[in-house]
Amino acid sequence: MNKKTVILISSVLFLFSALFVFANKETIVSSVSFPEGYRQWVHTKSMVIFDKKHPLFEPFGGIHHIYVNEKGLKANQEGGEYPDGSKLVFVLYEADETGGAYVAGKMKFVAVMEKDKKRFSDTGGWGFEVFKAGSQAGAVKDSKKECFECHSAQKSSDYVFSRYVE
Amino acid sequence: MNKKTVILISSVLFLFSALFVFANKETIVSSVSFPEGYRQWVHTKSMVIFDKKHPLFEPFGGIHHIYVNEKGLKANQEGGEYPDGSKLVFVLYEADETGGAYVAGKMKFVAVMEKDKKRFSDTGGWGFEVFKAGSQAGAVKDSKKECFECHSAQKSSDYVFSRYVE
Repeated sequence: MNKKTVILISSVLFLFSALFVFANKETIVSSVSFPEGYRQWVHTKSMVIFDKKHPLFEPFGGIHHIYVNEKGLKANQEGGEYPDGSKLVFVLYEADETGGAYVAGKMKFVAVMEKDKKRFSDTGGWGFEVFKAGSQAGAVKDSKKECFECHSAQKSSDYVFSRYVE
Repeated sequence: MNKKTVILISSVLFLFSALFVFANKETIVSSVSFPEGYRQWVHTKSMVIFDKKHPLFEPFGGIHHIYVNEKGLKANQEGGEYPDGSKLVFVLYEADETGGAYVAGKMKFVAVMEKDKKRFSDTGGWGFEVFKAGSQAGAVKDSKKECFECHSAQKSSDYVFSRYVE
């Protein structure tokens, strides 16, 4: 082989491995994509965690709303198993207090659960992701540890904490 | 006229006046009907009024959510005039405090604004109604005094207080 051929083959091999690493990284890092249009989904419930004494103040202090897409609505309202394609959003804002009232302040993050029994068989059939305010890149590194460890306690409601408030 | 004719005419006249009274009562008592399906509309914002020191604690203490129908969404997001047919719902629940958090408790009422420039020309083009929890009968007797007196201050946003929170 002459020098030119070696350079060409090396370049091609390098590009392929770079592509492989990049593609793989994509799969691992953001298997659940940003839930575009979630604010048009059905709002199911809200909560304000305002005091340090609440056990979830550290991760979830603030005002949060839950939204569910059409596929997941029935299970959220009536219980039972969520069908594949169901999505739930938990969006957290700072809780701004003004004169005896709380309103939503700065957004903190958008968290998503997406049901796909095959893709997410290790975590109860649910994929988990968190998007910090303004970011479309997932922040979760190990959804088993960071998300499912807590959600696994909710097996009887298909690993979902929230229930629709009439 | 014979007796039969007199009875017939009287009956018809009675039915007509009964119908008139009934129809009129309907128009006056519930000019804005219950907003069926409002929980499927877009959720725009929420607020928790938890302390007596808040000037609106007496009428609106608790946790409330605002929902807007499709026709009213753009104006609620971007400002400007709401088109006829726009509807906004303000639903109020008791704010239950548990260990440093507020969640929605018992529902108090569902309040509605409906835009119709002709029908509601006396009150900024908006009809106002309040449905106490579980009731489909309007509770507002004088919407000018009970609703519009406050809303009139919001002329610059077409008499609507709430604005969509991104």
